[in-house]
Amino acid sequence: MQKEEINRYLIEAKSHLVNELLPFWTSRMIDQKGGGYITHFDQYGKDTGEDEKSLIAQSRSLYTLSSAHRAGYGEGKLASLAGHGVDFMLHKMWDRKHGGFYWMMDRAGNVKIDQKILYGHSFAIYCLSEYTLATGDPRGLEYAEKTFDLIQKHCTDTRFGGYFEMFDRDWTLAGPGSKGGDRKTLDVHMHLMEAFTTLYECSGKEVHRRKLIEDIEILIHRMIHPEYKTGIPQFTADWRVAPQIKFDIVWGWDRYSGMGEKINPTDNTCYGHNAEFAWLLNHAIDILGMDHDHYLHLFASIFDHTIDHGIDTEFGGVFVEGPHSGGVYDKEKEFWQQAEVMIGLLDACLLFKNEKYWIAYKNVHHFVFRKVINRDAGEWYPLLTREGEPVWRHMGHSWKINYHTVRAMVQSVIRLKKLQDKQSFKL
Amino acid sequence: MQKEEINRYLIEAKSHLVNELLPFWTSRMIDQKGGGYITHFDQYGKDTGEDEKSLIAQSRSLYTLSSAHRAGYGEGKLASLAGHGVDFMLHKMWDRKHGGFYWMMDRAGNVKIDQKILYGHSFAIYCLSEYTLATGDPRGLEYAEKTFDLIQKHCTDTRFGGYFEMFDRDWTLAGPGSKGGDRKTLDVHMHLMEAFTTLYECSGKEVHRRKLIEDIEILIHRMIHPEYKTGIPQFTADWRVAPQIKFDIVWGWDRYSGMGEKINPTDNTCYGHNAEFAWLLNHAIDILGMDHDHYLHLFASIFDHTIDHGIDTEFGGVFVEGPHSGGVYDKEKEFWQQAEVMIGLLDACLLFKNEKYWIAYKNVHHFVFRKVINRDAGEWYPLLTREGEPVWRHMGHSWKINYHTVRAMVQSVIRLKKLQDKQSFKL
Repeated sequence: MQKEEINRYLIEAKSHLVNELLPFWTSRMIDQKGGGYITHFDQYGKDTGEDEKSLIAQSRSLYTLSSAHRAGYGEGKLASLAGHGVDFMLHKMWDRKHGGFYWMMDRAGNVKIDQKILYGHSFAIYCLSEYTLATGDPRGLEYAEKTFDLIQKHCTDTRFGGYFEMFDRDWTLAGPGSKGGDRKTLDVHMHLMEAFTTLYECSGKEVHRRKLIEDIEILIHRMIHPEYKTGIPQFTADWRVAPQIKFDIVWGWDRYSGMGEKINPTDNTCYGHNAEFAWLLNHAIDILGMDHDHYLHLFASIFDHTIDHGIDTEFGGVFVEGPHSGGVYDKEKEFWQQAEVMIGLLDACLLFKNEKYWIAYKNVHHFVFRKVINRDAGEWYPLLTREGEPVWRHMGHSWKINYHTVRAMVQSVIRLKKLQDKQSFKL
Repeated sequence: MQKEEINRYLIEAKSHLVNELLPFWTSRMIDQKGGGYITHFDQYGKDTGEDEKSLIAQSRSLYTLSSAHRAGYGEGKLASLAGHGVDFMLHKMWDRKHGGFYWMMDRAGNVKIDQKILYGHSFAIYCLSEYTLATGDPRGLEYAEKTFDLIQKHCTDTRFGGYFEMFDRDWTLAGPGSKGGDRKTLDVHMHLMEAFTTLYECSGKEVHRRKLIEDIEILIHRMIHPEYKTGIPQFTADWRVAPQIKFDIVWGWDRYSGMGEKINPTDNTCYGHNAEFAWLLNHAIDILGMDHDHYLHLFASIFDHTIDHGIDTEFGGVFVEGPHSGGVYDKEKEFWQQAEVMIGLLDACLLFKNEKYWIAYKNVHHFVFRKVINRDAGEWYPLLTREGEPVWRHMGHSWKINYHTVRAMVQSVIRLKKLQDKQSFKL
């Protein structure tokens, strides 16, 4: 029965992936005229015409197509669509003078914002490595390595460790404050872990392995709360907790007060990030061939905090954020947090074989399939009220694309199969 | 009278440089057969035939020739001899597969030790930048920048800041202990400051400036004693003071006990390094266009420690090393420490206009000119007893070359002229 129950979730996830998510994108994302991907769609899946191609949306789309191909979907079609996106990234978004990728282009491939933003470069490394792993085309790894080398040269803080994140086109470090040149964020250092994991998986090089391990050590020893193991969003260069402010260059719709600060700027943790950090770390440990046992206590702390404080047992789904010690500040529901918590909770089931994580997974799964997925289109609403009413309704944008949704289904299917395959598995 | 006194020292230094030091090297260093420089000479200036070309001796010789040319010596001849050394470094010592310079060659240009050692690469950056500044040949800066980029990629510790120092040929980090892969040294981080200063002087690039400033911050806030401002030789990766051990790859004849540790492995500071650090920092501040006032207290602490504990008022010259709080462990006299303290004390005279530094300078100057210089050859003995009797007598070796001696005279002449030019200058 347990096995049959898992099977129902597996079938639902796979069906959504194959019949809704992937077709939504493959049928409308290719820009034959301008190259690369069209990424702006309204709630009906209609192209909004917004004249933007962001590094985030292009690289995440390339990741989506490559990773789904590598996981066995699409019968080859996804690989060819991935190649279309690589061409645009390497021929249009790559800065031949200073190296690195521009932050924002128009659809025709002209530069709109030429700054070099580390957040975007972590996704460039991630998607280009995944593309070579998926297709064997060496161009992906070549440019992933070039990007890695540029980051090591320009972004590392050799004084305090870690990475600076915001630069001008020529990699001059940006100024302080809202320009972000004096901050270090959990978000970027977590996505570097994700990127370096796949880069190392692809290259097998010692330097990629070493910098991945160093980044993991930073995350564990600097960027999570010493007691609660919850993520802390922002730091000064010398690793003091910094008030969480809004940067001039944004990569999402995170909500701030009028002053550009969170209402609780120094005591704020995000459930989606915490679960994402845990499963990405678990994956990194796999790829590194290291011992999971050393990290079990950490994983238990993070997943317990997620289910104790982040799961809405009344209306279902995952809250946005709250204080480290527990409680919730923001009870709305963001699409990507549901996606990351689904993967994380399935990892928790596999690691700990404890029923409580399975119950929490089912909660989030149900909320996603009943409320978050826009059945008329096949993609997810980006933001909903606590009760599950859509607040924002667009399907695609520079900061809302297929990476979280498709990855959640690809990775959930892998994990649900593992759960199912364990004959002796009793939750 | 003060001015005339300074003039006597100036004339003596310049005469030694022009009539002894430079001719000693230019008349015998060019290897027409194997390329590059011959660097092994006995006390009579005779080639010992030792079949080694070390990265240290080749790069330091290139620095010597380039810097002396830039300072106005040699009537163009030194620039052409410098070009001869650049050819060997770029065509024979550069690893075309993995990048970077081999550690040790034979005279014919075959690799003897292929490891990548950061200490050597700091001198590569230093000499190649100085070569381009001196001659305008762009090859120097091109390879200095390539080396800088490799260091940023392979050597930075993104976890704790600073640089790892010992690598295999392919830049895999060396193991711990005597292999040195888990240590950070004052020596290397100080010479990186020296190298990045000249690289930035040559390139004017922001990234070179930024990494120079970060290295200076590490040196000031991590690597000198918080109370005495004296240099601490070795650290663990996470900046704990480490017992001073001998590494498998050596770049000098520093003396250790049978266990490969100093007799006082955790309370040991070197007068030559302290003064060298201070004047190199003073020079870096000049090149960066930063304010000296901020550092005056630091400089006073270092130079006062040097003259209070490092100067031998009985027999003259500079002791080797002692405890941070004062006193001396090793009363022998090493050639290079005399050289660096001479430059440092002249900086102290210019910064503080205090007679005590001038008295100390004269002490060291006299010791050098009466005891250390081997008048029969024109170069300096590498090691002497406290009283000034030579212990080692060779004039050149892989770890004893013209860099300290020629630089001391070039830099002393510049500083003695400045002292002399200050009409109103009263010590």
